[in-house]
Amino acid sequence: MAPPPPSMAPRMTALILRVLTFAFLLASLAILTTNTSTLEIGDDLLKIRFKDIYSYRYMLATIVFGIAYTVLQVAFTLHHIVKRNAQTSSDGNPVFDFYGDKVISYILATGAAAGFGATKDMKPLLSLTVLGADKFFNKGYASASLLLLGFVCTAILSVLSSYALPKKV
Amino acid sequence: MAPPPPSMAPRMTALILRVLTFAFLLASLAILTTNTSTLEIGDDLLKIRFKDIYSYRYMLATIVFGIAYTVLQVAFTLHHIVKRNAQTSSDGNPVFDFYGDKVISYILATGAAAGFGATKDMKPLLSLTVLGADKFFNKGYASASLLLLGFVCTAILSVLSSYALPKKV
Repeated sequence: MAPPPPSMAPRMTALILRVLTFAFLLASLAILTTNTSTLEIGDDLLKIRFKDIYSYRYMLATIVFGIAYTVLQVAFTLHHIVKRNAQTSSDGNPVFDFYGDKVISYILATGAAAGFGATKDMKPLLSLTVLGADKFFNKGYASASLLLLGFVCTAILSVLSSYALPKKV
Repeated sequence: MAPPPPSMAPRMTALILRVLTFAFLLASLAILTTNTSTLEIGDDLLKIRFKDIYSYRYMLATIVFGIAYTVLQVAFTLHHIVKRNAQTSSDGNPVFDFYGDKVISYILATGAAAGFGATKDMKPLLSLTVLGADKFFNKGYASASLLLLGFVCTAILSVLSSYALPKKV
């Protein structure tokens, strides 16, 4: 007799967390990439975009990595759920999940931290002298906060995938 | 008959990595806290210290957390090695190690990222107009790099402690 298929509960928890991660990262991406502001320096008008801040560029890179990985994992999970009726009792690839979740959660954490750090330090420096900078950096905070929420979901996933790891490899 | 005591190899690997983490964090702390520079703005002289940059303050907090946790873990490991002759075959507290390593590695990663992000974005902003800022931010890079190395050691420890985790809790 074949062994009983593993419970669906951990798979569904992981799926919900991945969908949440995807939503947070997408919202963060939308705010980050549409963030433009016109600065008034004396009589000059200068357009500032997220590309002008290196930390925001790094944030973009981490968000793109995070979204790509999350979409891949959601596809794997859906594939697993569909195939389950066809007698496969495999539980995916726990070692790939473990390292993937771990690396992506570190990447998202550093992205959020770089965004917060640069925003916190540059905002007072520019807001005092330049009109329009305040709005720009507030959107930076909003994007970094959403990225942080995406990181929290991935960190929980990383704990779950650590517990699902085989004892010795 | 008592079960054979677990092998010393993983404990020794962890101990070496913890000592390395401690060394990197201590060096990072030393460079960060002694980082002062005198800025020349026109005719004025202004002293800048690491406290003036919020991201560097956050770095300090993460380094202090990291050092405190690492010292605690080294003490536990030494205690375990000494007690081993006295018939204790326990392997420490794998769940504490797992969550501790995970949380501290996230904290160190965000500290290094905030330091790199703020340095990268503020250096060109100040170095062009202010004399002496270049040296200050280069030391910021040095400190963040050492913090990053400390993070790498802790991330490896976090992988090891995930594998040492009991299958289900």
